[in-house]
Amino acid sequence: MTMQTPDQAAQTPAAREAPRHRSVELGHDEPLVLDCGLTLGPVTIAYETYGRLNADRSNAILVCHALTGDQYLTGRHPVTGKPGWWSLMVGPGLPFDTERYFIICSNVIGGCMGTTGPKSINPATGRPWGLSFPVITIADMVRAQKLLIDHLGIDKLFCVTGGSMGGMQALQWAASYPERVFAAVPIATAARHTAQNIAFHEVGRQAIMADPDWCGGNYMEHSKVPRRGLAVARMTAHITYLSEAALHRKFGRRLQDRARVGYGFEAEFQVESYLRHQGSSFVERFDANSYLYITRAMDYFDLAAEYGGTLANAFKGTPVRFCIISFTSDWLFPTSENRDIVHALNAAAADVSFVEIESEAGHDAFLLDEPELRATLGGFLNGCAEKRGLSTP
Amino acid sequence: MTMQTPDQAAQTPAAREAPRHRSVELGHDEPLVLDCGLTLGPVTIAYETYGRLNADRSNAILVCHALTGDQYLTGRHPVTGKPGWWSLMVGPGLPFDTERYFIICSNVIGGCMGTTGPKSINPATGRPWGLSFPVITIADMVRAQKLLIDHLGIDKLFCVTGGSMGGMQALQWAASYPERVFAAVPIATAARHTAQNIAFHEVGRQAIMADPDWCGGNYMEHSKVPRRGLAVARMTAHITYLSEAALHRKFGRRLQDRARVGYGFEAEFQVESYLRHQGSSFVERFDANSYLYITRAMDYFDLAAEYGGTLANAFKGTPVRFCIISFTSDWLFPTSENRDIVHALNAAAADVSFVEIESEAGHDAFLLDEPELRATLGGFLNGCAEKRGLSTP
Repeated sequence: MTMQTPDQAAQTPAAREAPRHRSVELGHDEPLVLDCGLTLGPVTIAYETYGRLNADRSNAILVCHALTGDQYLTGRHPVTGKPGWWSLMVGPGLPFDTERYFIICSNVIGGCMGTTGPKSINPATGRPWGLSFPVITIADMVRAQKLLIDHLGIDKLFCVTGGSMGGMQALQWAASYPERVFAAVPIATAARHTAQNIAFHEVGRQAIMADPDWCGGNYMEHSKVPRRGLAVARMTAHITYLSEAALHRKFGRRLQDRARVGYGFEAEFQVESYLRHQGSSFVERFDANSYLYITRAMDYFDLAAEYGGTLANAFKGTPVRFCIISFTSDWLFPTSENRDIVHALNAAAADVSFVEIESEAGHDAFLLDEPELRATLGGFLNGCAEKRGLSTP
Repeated sequence: MTMQTPDQAAQTPAAREAPRHRSVELGHDEPLVLDCGLTLGPVTIAYETYGRLNADRSNAILVCHALTGDQYLTGRHPVTGKPGWWSLMVGPGLPFDTERYFIICSNVIGGCMGTTGPKSINPATGRPWGLSFPVITIADMVRAQKLLIDHLGIDKLFCVTGGSMGGMQALQWAASYPERVFAAVPIATAARHTAQNIAFHEVGRQAIMADPDWCGGNYMEHSKVPRRGLAVARMTAHITYLSEAALHRKFGRRLQDRARVGYGFEAEFQVESYLRHQGSSFVERFDANSYLYITRAMDYFDLAAEYGGTLANAFKGTPVRFCIISFTSDWLFPTSENRDIVHALNAAAADVSFVEIESEAGHDAFLLDEPELRATLGGFLNGCAEKRGLSTP
């Protein structure tokens, strides 16, 4: 029902590639009741799985993706042709060992890789939702994921994990459905979006909405794409994903394909060229309205507020085993925000490990080849697998 | 020659206000030779002075303004109607004591408040320069200021100072004309623009150039203003001027004029409302092409590169007394960058004081009511005034 017609699919570059989408339409019996009060249903959920579900369905790990991530964890991405975003972590012998675990990753609701979102067709009108799509929250994303987990017949997830916005979802899962989660590993995240993070998101949204090709959100119907605005949004965000030290080491003040400055406004510095590339390649794979909706969901995230203003209340009596991971050079989701989660879990007498990993890479460290991240994830999952009685691979 | 005709003046909001401009046309005998190799001249330099030049012309302080600053240090700003940007510092009994010193501040070359810049008329064509204006550097700004100082008959400045880009100019003055400067106070600055800072500037420029109303830089001739792009550029930059702690204290996650989130894309959070206001008010007073040129000048700034790659060489045998000031929460021009300047000055055996001021305000601290900044400036200037033999007020 939310699948695109060939005509609509032709309107965005991402859709033109006709990516492989494993998807399922759920919520026929009762629609998804969203935080905003509206209902949505049925919804299509696009997802991928890696490894095999064991006989007692106890080895399932749900990986939640970040703002611009998707369900393609490993293998060749159907749109970009590049390896999936967690190829370094998911596979045989890797921390998320596909010989041992059954890994699930679904595109979030509001997304643009097959799950129902603003570029889907509103069944009531036969036209793309655009800005008439209801504003969704992290809790709504988790509600949609729960429909999928129910559909797959999994009573209890062995683990739910993710970095950045994925970590927000992992926290929300543990808070909303503690009996459905054995272990949770929120990485480089926060229990609330800070003022600075809201500010950076707002700049990105303003850049998109300032682009005349955005057409008030109806660009699909006008066969347009707000490329320039979306690229500027991505460029701004990308700076926040790296540390100053990483930018200095990678680019410094080095020039791009020239020996001296050219006294003009071309991309003369390597860092400019890199950012422009980040902007233009992002436009090929991501939907501008999805960017608005998903950033908004992150802005609204404030887990303590859902529990009377005290974060510890979100985890009172929780049976979930937690491992919280942060990175020293991450200034977008700094260690202090992650430590606030640890303090709340301590106050709730929860079972929690906390590891701050020394890294120069900034927020993006969770996507990169960080040996200590591998070791931490592998060790924590092994320990949990023993407790859960999972066989060794 | 670079003065606007009434028609052209009507095309930008800032110009419509017909601000008071004290200005002088200089460089008739020989034009300004710019770093890019082109020449420019004569040039109009718009400036303001505060206090009185003493008989032996030894009490002149040149204040250099930052990226979006101008020559209006104190008193009512002719465009915004607000107090000048350093009203807290310049006046009777204040650190820059107008009873004792003669304070000069000129709009930088490339600027938009009366000094020759991209919105001025190119005498060769009779049309606004736009992007045909030569790309300028910090050293070019200082060359233009030197024309003004020569014109005012000042052989040696008592002090040259400024914050951020103003600090870059102060450093350049001390390096280029050490015999013309008694003391220099670079504040919250760096001897080179970092990769992260170039990146943020590039995002701002891309936002401006993405706006169709920018018209390839010729918006004045099309009677347009790239408001949306310039506002997005300002919003992005503004986030970098504040610390995360300052944003948290000022706004946190508080909502604007509402009790609960509205599930939409309005400015619901106070921080969003504040940023939108920063963007829209900036557009009323600043020229988009000037923003391109001045950010580019900052990107190009790398003082060591002008001296064989060793910053200390820029200050070899300097007679200038330095006071370097940084702020603990400034992440745009962090203490580490300021300390690099101190190390270079130490290596050059220069007379240097260094003060890192504890402040939560971020980069903007140099514009705010920071008692330790006042005390540091007042104390350093007093000491220098004694050495220079200036009478007490």
